[in-house]
Amino acid sequence: MAAARLWTDDEVAKNPRVKAVIDDIRATRKTDFVNNFWRALANQPAVLERTWAGVKEIMIAPGVLDPLTKELIYIAVSATNACTYCAHSHTAAARAKGMTDEQHAELIAIIGMANETNALASALQIPVDKEFEVV
Amino acid sequence: MAAARLWTDDEVAKNPRVKAVIDDIRATRKTDFVNNFWRALANQPAVLERTWAGVKEIMIAPGVLDPLTKELIYIAVSATNACTYCAHSHTAAARAKGMTDEQHAELIAIIGMANETNALASALQIPVDKEFEVV
Amino acid sequence: MAAARLWTDDEVAKNPRVKAVIDDIRATRKTDFVNNFWRALANQPAVLERTWAGVKEIMIAPGVLDPLTKELIYIAVSATNACTYCAHSHTAAARAKGMTDEQHAELIAIIGMANETNALASALQIPVDKEFEVV
Amino acid sequence: MAAARLWTDDEVAKNPRVKAVIDDIRATRKTDFVNNFWRALANQPAVLERTWAGVKEIMIAPGVLDPLTKELIYIAVSATNACTYCAHSHTAAARAKGMTDEQHAELIAIIGMANETNALASALQIPVDKEFEVV
Amino acid sequence: MAAARLWTDDEVAKNPRVKAVIDDIRATRKTDFVNNFWRALANQPAVLERTWAGVKEIMIAPGVLDPLTKELIYIAVSATNACTYCAHSHTAAARAKGMTDEQHAELIAIIGMANETNALASALQIPVDKEFEVV
Amino acid sequence: MAAARLWTDDEVAKNPRVKAVIDDIRATRKTDFVNNFWRALANQPAVLERTWAGVKEIMIAPGVLDPLTKELIYIAVSATNACTYCAHSHTAAARAKGMTDEQHAELIAIIGMANETNALASALQIPVDKEFEVV
Repeated sequence: MAAARLWTDDEVAKNPRVKAVIDDIRATRKTDFVNNFWRALANQPAVLERTWAGVKEIMIAPGVLDPLTKELIYIAVSATNACTYCAHSHTAAARAKGMTDEQHAELIAIIGMANETNALASALQIPVDKEFEVV
Repeated sequence: MAAARLWTDDEVAKNPRVKAVIDDIRATRKTDFVNNFWRALANQPAVLERTWAGVKEIMIAPGVLDPLTKELIYIAVSATNACTYCAHSHTAAARAKGMTDEQHAELIAIIGMANETNALASALQIPVDKEFEVV
Repeated sequence: MAAARLWTDDEVAKNPRVKAVIDDIRATRKTDFVNNFWRALANQPAVLERTWAGVKEIMIAPGVLDPLTKELIYIAVSATNACTYCAHSHTAAARAKGMTDEQHAELIAIIGMANETNALASALQIPVDKEFEVV
Repeated sequence: MAAARLWTDDEVAKNPRVKAVIDDIRATRKTDFVNNFWRALANQPAVLERTWAGVKEIMIAPGVLDPLTKELIYIAVSATNACTYCAHSHTAAARAKGMTDEQHAELIAIIGMANETNALASALQIPVDKEFEVV
Repeated sequence: MAAARLWTDDEVAKNPRVKAVIDDIRATRKTDFVNNFWRALANQPAVLERTWAGVKEIMIAPGVLDPLTKELIYIAVSATNACTYCAHSHTAAARAKGMTDEQHAELIAIIGMANETNALASALQIPVDKEFEVV
Repeated sequence: MAAARLWTDDEVAKNPRVKAVIDDIRATRKTDFVNNFWRALANQPAVLERTWAGVKEIMIAPGVLDPLTKELIYIAVSATNACTYCAHSHTAAARAKGMTDEQHAELIAIIGMANETNALASALQIPVDKEFEVV
């Protein structure tokens, strides 16, 4: 199932703009495995470049949040959006970054509870307390 | 703006079932301030009890994820659901738990990027790599 | 707050196509009150006509589901979509059709739980049991 | 496709905490069939316990809404969230509880119309009528 | 995978109400191919009729937006809703109406960016500038 | 209502990194008006820079889709996400780029219909036709 063609390594090799990104993905992640997300974005080289630049800057470059915490946040968004690909890929990424079963279990509980209370607040259209307002 | 009445302290005092929960919220959080979420759920005592029990178990009881990380995950879900009340209340909660401007900035960047790549994956309906499958 | 102008009764009176729909809304509902939803759709007469025809056919014409059950379903969708206007208007409509506080409380509980378990299923990407497949 | 392992009956049997919930599911539903949702949640025993307790309290215990109405509401939320697993499982559950083709057809029509008018209201950002405000 | 039965041509032939719509779909589109969406809606003849009437009026009848632009908008909604069927069917429809790879690439970029900035605005709960208000 | 502080011109002037972006927004758009979105993102200079760079590349730089079509797509995503700020700001932007009432009316109709049929497809979990599959 797909609404876009996935580029093979041969096709990547023939397109210098795409090849530069894919080469950098392999070098940065220190693995030959390139997942389908990037093989699909290869159809849109500008999107491929911009997205990979964003991932490097936001998810890979050192920051104040540690890499695993970043993946937990990513999973939470992906589950809320019901994004099949993203829930799979970022759960795999979190495991690769050391997520334990206990951490996964707590993450799952929070995702469930947050979606529950979000729905309660939206159903009741609860007014924001003035104590929470910044402006 | 609201689709449900907010209970005043006087009304809470007259309903033992609601009062028990509100008293426990005040005691657990060590503050007299009770935000509108709970004053709205007071209309549904069973939901109030169940939700507060869940929040205590999932968000307040010690676990393997620290309290601030839990709030960051909650904000990510709330932003993705466009929940006005929840984005306000959990951003305030995260600040109260020590979220710095730098942490907030990284969280915001991840929320933006995750929603972007979720949309890309859903637009292209990218097939899940077999490497990401658990079953 | 609005991204579209709301038509006054004077403006409605001057546009026969819009007036025909608004007149029918008043006659069908047996009230002079016309809520903002229809005053905003007046900017798009074809959408106004099509939407009112749909509401009459689906929500007002007698069917196998009773009118209150239909409103409960509508509230559930509106809360899940975080639609401010819709949660307000359909909660008011359900109350006008006799929704009791107890029914509202159970509805709220189901909406919360359904959004919770939806998020759990999407986070874990649980495969559909073959027993649930129709085709 | 799955982002979590599904527990077999043998694995369930070896974990007393999980076994207690699964046994109660079988006893309560009077069937040996345990669908994948619970076999996936078994990875998170606390979530499994809390979710099953919620389902029993909200969906199974007698209330003011009848069991089929509850399932219709659940389907509406699941369709709106585009939750593949949930739409399948709750449509099957509704049929098991006696949903007729005519009831399903009306439900589908309401879900479609509610999502349509929700989108119209959000696109036009229609202000809430003061008549609909509770607070 | 499906939660509803797909009607075969033989079944369609036996139901005059359904047959009338399916015949009109074939005549209007000048092709014998009828995609699963309509074969599933055949279970709900009233929804089938209403939906096809809407598609004819909104997507097929000449208007001020050209047919390809309409499909691009449809894809944007479908990706945002994570609707698997819709993303596939409307991407195919857009290609059939002449969408080039370059147009698809720009569409994908906009869908990604819009979902990103929507999430930023919802996370920060940015107040609407008075300059943008119509009412 | 806001969960983040909006930067005044005085504050912008004191932060060179933020000032560079805000100056470029004013120069590119040929107006002194800077809307709240950018004044809120000023709290996260890296997000501000990345987002403005993306908007310039995707929404402002000449491409194969015309500027108004891009805004229509943006409105469709914003309405589907129920993003209050985004629906307001991009509807205003589309009007500034020449969107007529007739174009707006057709856009609104498509947004409504797409959300309706998305919900139908998700409720019925209709399987994707093999004719729509790329891979």
